[in-house]
Amino acid sequence: MAKNKHCLLIVDDEPNVCDSVHDLLRREFHVLKAHSAEEGYQLMQQEEVHIVMSDQRMPQITGVELLCRLKSRYPQAVRMLFTGFADLESVIAAINQGHVFQFIRKPWQPEELLAAVRQAALEYDRLELVAREREVLLGEIEGLKNRVTSLESEVHRLRADDHADPVAPSSPVL
Amino acid sequence: MAKNKHCLLIVDDEPNVCDSVHDLLRREFHVLKAHSAEEGYQLMQQEEVHIVMSDQRMPQITGVELLCRLKSRYPQAVRMLFTGFADLESVIAAINQGHVFQFIRKPWQPEELLAAVRQAALEYDRLELVAREREVLLGEIEGLKNRVTSLESEVHRLRADDHADPVAPSSPVL
Repeated sequence: MAKNKHCLLIVDDEPNVCDSVHDLLRREFHVLKAHSAEEGYQLMQQEEVHIVMSDQRMPQITGVELLCRLKSRYPQAVRMLFTGFADLESVIAAINQGHVFQFIRKPWQPEELLAAVRQAALEYDRLELVAREREVLLGEIEGLKNRVTSLESEVHRLRADDHADPVAPSSPVL
Repeated sequence: MAKNKHCLLIVDDEPNVCDSVHDLLRREFHVLKAHSAEEGYQLMQQEEVHIVMSDQRMPQITGVELLCRLKSRYPQAVRMLFTGFADLESVIAAINQGHVFQFIRKPWQPEELLAAVRQAALEYDRLELVAREREVLLGEIEGLKNRVTSLESEVHRLRADDHADPVAPSSPVL
């Protein structure tokens, strides 16, 4: 059952926020909690994360910095940033450096967060579909190439038989 | 020569801003100027625009609204927003609704604008490459399918000949 859910990672140094996001989303999403960027990296390595949601203000690193790093390593994960102290600089950095998909302010309304996360899941599916289609097309090409090779051998063999016949009509029939 | 340049559309109700962007970028980019969203739409229809850059504050429509509309109609164009009166709401909307690639504040430093536009051009090329690769793969599949069909006919014809030979050795040779 949980396999069909999107996997969301929430990174926040405040355990309460992680817990409340977990409780709000756990029916629809497989929610992983990290209380530091370090824990977040570890979970990204262990699990296939579809959506990563980070607080902007954390002791060691900003959310934008974390999302930037994750972007280059896990480009398929859709990025969301939230903060209770929204300053213009961090939001502009979220666009220009982190290319985040959604920005959310604390405190959020439960429906608002749910709607934003659902939209992120749709975006993940859209990107995934594009990536999968490429795999499917490459697989189809591989199959067709094999078919061409085997048909070419068959044509070659039949032509050889064909030419052999009039010259040596007594050649053994296989 | 202009054909190889990326085409950038600047939308701003202040003609001075359009002119200064034009003058700054014209050596590297093919720059189109629109003084209203309406003019912008018209130019988007007439030309293949790669990067669209809009001011947030315009008389009829906000930049975010314009970029949102363009996003659904011309998803391949990379979107940039700029404003001299950056308020948090408009920047958050730029992320959540317009999914803009770069946000720039007026007044900008020429190098800053140039760097942002160059990055947008790279992003356009990246997306274009993905789209083009799909076309190439589909073309390859089409070609391989035709080859399979023609080889199958050839095999069919040769087998028919092959079977015909022993039964009717006097059948006419083509």
